[in-house]
Amino acid sequence: MSLIVMKFGGTSVGDIDRIKNAAAKVALEVQRGHKVAVVVSAMMGVTDQLIGYCRAISPRYDQREHDAVVATGEQVSSGLMSLALQQRGLNARSWQGWQVGLRTDSTHGKARIADIDPQTLLASIDDGKIGVVAGFQGVTEDGRITTLGRGGSDTSAVALAVALKADRCDIYTDVDGVYSADPRIVESARKMKRVSYEEMLELASLGAKVLQARSVEMAMRYRMPVQVLSTFANEIGSDLPGTLITEGNEKMEENTVTGIAHTRDEAKITLVKVSDKPGIAARVFVPLARAGINVDMIVQTASDENHTTDISFTVGKSDFDRALKVLEDEQPSIGYTKLTSAKNVAKISLVGLGMRSHVGVAATMFETLAEKGINILVIETSEINTSVLISDEYTELALRALHTAYGLDAA
Amino acid sequence: MSLIVMKFGGTSVGDIDRIKNAAAKVALEVQRGHKVAVVVSAMMGVTDQLIGYCRAISPRYDQREHDAVVATGEQVSSGLMSLALQQRGLNARSWQGWQVGLRTDSTHGKARIADIDPQTLLASIDDGKIGVVAGFQGVTEDGRITTLGRGGSDTSAVALAVALKADRCDIYTDVDGVYSADPRIVESARKMKRVSYEEMLELASLGAKVLQARSVEMAMRYRMPVQVLSTFANEIGSDLPGTLITEGNEKMEENTVTGIAHTRDEAKITLVKVSDKPGIAARVFVPLARAGINVDMIVQTASDENHTTDISFTVGKSDFDRALKVLEDEQPSIGYTKLTSAKNVAKISLVGLGMRSHVGVAATMFETLAEKGINILVIETSEINTSVLISDEYTELALRALHTAYGLDAA
Repeated sequence: MSLIVMKFGGTSVGDIDRIKNAAAKVALEVQRGHKVAVVVSAMMGVTDQLIGYCRAISPRYDQREHDAVVATGEQVSSGLMSLALQQRGLNARSWQGWQVGLRTDSTHGKARIADIDPQTLLASIDDGKIGVVAGFQGVTEDGRITTLGRGGSDTSAVALAVALKADRCDIYTDVDGVYSADPRIVESARKMKRVSYEEMLELASLGAKVLQARSVEMAMRYRMPVQVLSTFANEIGSDLPGTLITEGNEKMEENTVTGIAHTRDEAKITLVKVSDKPGIAARVFVPLARAGINVDMIVQTASDENHTTDISFTVGKSDFDRALKVLEDEQPSIGYTKLTSAKNVAKISLVGLGMRSHVGVAATMFETLAEKGINILVIETSEINTSVLISDEYTELALRALHTAYGLDAA
Repeated sequence: MSLIVMKFGGTSVGDIDRIKNAAAKVALEVQRGHKVAVVVSAMMGVTDQLIGYCRAISPRYDQREHDAVVATGEQVSSGLMSLALQQRGLNARSWQGWQVGLRTDSTHGKARIADIDPQTLLASIDDGKIGVVAGFQGVTEDGRITTLGRGGSDTSAVALAVALKADRCDIYTDVDGVYSADPRIVESARKMKRVSYEEMLELASLGAKVLQARSVEMAMRYRMPVQVLSTFANEIGSDLPGTLITEGNEKMEENTVTGIAHTRDEAKITLVKVSDKPGIAARVFVPLARAGINVDMIVQTASDENHTTDISFTVGKSDFDRALKVLEDEQPSIGYTKLTSAKNVAKISLVGLGMRSHVGVAATMFETLAEKGINILVIETSEINTSVLISDEYTELALRALHTAYGLDAA
């Protein structure tokens, strides 16, 4: 008898009918003989409404009170889901973060899970009760309510699956799996049956919104199989209808490139004619880090005869204004002559374990983009991804061309 | 330095602006040098919405899950109130029932408070933090969330005041005190400056909706002074602007009758020609009690020459249909010849400690009603109240006439 954790996101429990529909999915797994723990998000729109209340009272609100307010969204869902399961004749009860011993650190608003004490919950599940756990929330050592940050319910679900030694963690969402590229843009995108933890982590970090990157990180660390699948599609006959995120090996992959991610969430900043001397990069990036601004792609041009260089990098669009302010303040220290910036950029990333052992992957990318007349602004590579920054008006064109060039199109 | 518990009901925290307004009342007490614990209800309408969700999923819902869902309303208010206090520069934090050790029995949906362990909260208050406690909720011995039933936040507030050994419990609501009769009906009704626990308990039990009767009972048991006052009125210069519920003594009262309560929530049932033999009342009222139906006013006419009698009594309108069903089922056992009933009745109650020592109070009532041509259906008296059941179309007329007859009209 195996134990499965089933997680339902905000759209999957968006209203009473959808909660009932999700309960039917749980009933199906129980019928198949599995023990089940369920993790639920807040009903769609509720979290935003609650955050809106906090902001309306206090623009710079206390994150601890924000957490007490916002965690109620998942509490409501956990109770309603339990009722929906009971209404189907199943034995179920709700569990809040503090009831299930989900302990976090005290960085309210984006707390990290420290540990879960699963004994009470496990005893209840072994006793035949479906455990319905409120996602996204935990409790600090000294008993205050925390939340795990946007998408945190994915992490709750994986952490719970690990603590319960579950056989699998199923993430029910509004798409039916992980695709080789965003299917709303690339019509020929293929749903992957399997993808490795490493690749999924890159895809999630690089813009694929299907799973929170932290949850993939945790699944990878504990080797917990995670399946992404749809709450709304009918699944007939298949045991694993979605995309299974699991151990990867290169032989398993037919393609060098597994998927293509993209994001429009970054902006580019260029510092022109920075004097090329030791320690100059630190003068740029240390103040940004101190201001809590993450810098992503960085490129520095070769030094010219005047020993000056241009430094380009990207930051999240939400940090853009603050980054400009920091760099203006630091101008005397850095000594650039001009600052240029662009918000209309997109980052396109190829991801694949096969890139480790294949040469010429990047070359194909550059050729393909050149053929379409697309200028590359910044390039960044890691062991299993190659990313370029381009003007965002070319996003769709680039995605489709690369998808074809790497042989990813569905037959 | 005294400690005051301030409780704000659903209309007082009905929206963001009202929460800010309530926070200003708290700030005023802090300015006056008091330590403060705040108890909040859910924002107006929220509890009904949450109960609606439960009903939509499962008509006969599990009260335990209902409690987990519904308790979130107060949790949201407690966080928002804390933020509003912080925004005014005050130090404040929210406390849920389980965090403040408010333990109840496990009769979910209308749990009774067993005890409160106030040490952690008290230490925080002594440390200069305003404690904002979610009303209406507690936790069972084995850690499940409970709610205290409609109006339960009043009881939370008084219980907390008792546990914290507060100097006073102020109940902020949408009326500015307790009146000698409903001021929407009796224009000359007077706001009382003081009323005794005993009288307030009668008034609350007999229809005055300003306070939950259970909270008055608890205040009386522990001799906790409770003040009822308005969140919306401006109070200038008065330390006790509302009505203080406190120890009573008959000298303190100028009038024999302190107040007149009324309710339209009861319905009358008459069993005609019941044979007048020992044990017959038990055959009527034991089955009703078993069905959880409270019976209020009871009157039995003198036996006639056939040794039969009529039994009339009132039940809550919400129990009316079930009561009829029980009585029909028991007809063979009781042996009545006919059952008549009336829902268009009102109960009018005179309340006053002075009634203990004054004679002729009831006589004045009967005369006054007779003069106005109002027929009395049932009479019930206790030490400090005299109640009559009349046809509800005479409610306003009776209230005004009695208010004048007992000298209660404001000067």
